[in-house]
Amino acid sequence: MNKIEHIGIAVKDLDASNKLFAALLGTSHYKTEEVTSEGVKTSFFKAGPNKIELLEATNQESPIAKFITKKGEGVHHIAFAVDDIESEIERLQKEGFVVLNAVPKKGADNKLVAFLHPKSTSGVLIELCQEIVP
Amino acid sequence: MNKIEHIGIAVKDLDASNKLFAALLGTSHYKTEEVTSEGVKTSFFKAGPNKIELLEATNQESPIAKFITKKGEGVHHIAFAVDDIESEIERLQKEGFVVLNAVPKKGADNKLVAFLHPKSTSGVLIELCQEIVP
Repeated sequence: MNKIEHIGIAVKDLDASNKLFAALLGTSHYKTEEVTSEGVKTSFFKAGPNKIELLEATNQESPIAKFITKKGEGVHHIAFAVDDIESEIERLQKEGFVVLNAVPKKGADNKLVAFLHPKSTSGVLIELCQEIVP
Repeated sequence: MNKIEHIGIAVKDLDASNKLFAALLGTSHYKTEEVTSEGVKTSFFKAGPNKIELLEATNQESPIAKFITKKGEGVHHIAFAVDDIESEIERLQKEGFVVLNAVPKKGADNKLVAFLHPKSTSGVLIELCQEIVP
């Protein structure tokens, strides 16, 4: 794991939280992106080598809608940058972690991503992400 | 905010979670520390420029014990590194954030720290931390 690539935060109102995190971090979000397959609108902020991703659900079936119903707004996942997501998935499976995406999928921000089940990681939803190089 | 200094994760059993995060991150924790005033035992892992801090309560009055009772294990706070914590506190108070420690206090890992109330930050407990230089 090279670094914390980003922290994903589930929010109810992306516009309101964009203002709030801009004030907190002292910098505005630098992009927004909708991931239709996940039912989310996202925005990204930079904090030095790391990013903050805010996520708002676009429909009630979205994992983010379900998360907020169950737990309220807050940290949804932690994403670690990896160089080779397939070998990391294999390594973590051998270590006994429950990988939810044995085949990595396309996520936001031009990344291949895979999630680990929080039951195997002290309640924390962990994302692995690898930059897609054209 | 210079970077994510660390993510604090509330755990029930520090020894068990130390093993789990060592397997996840591919590296063992590099130190442990007890903060008696907060009722916590902590361990620290490196992930490139960032750290993961695991926190186990040492008594039932600890904020970590209360957090786990209410929400279960998981992400407890996000800490951002700042150069001048006092000026950041003043800036954030002017922005309308609720700062829980108007005077920063001594935290783990040789840091001056202050927390923002999660009600003012989309449900995320934010910590500011500044390295104490002798």
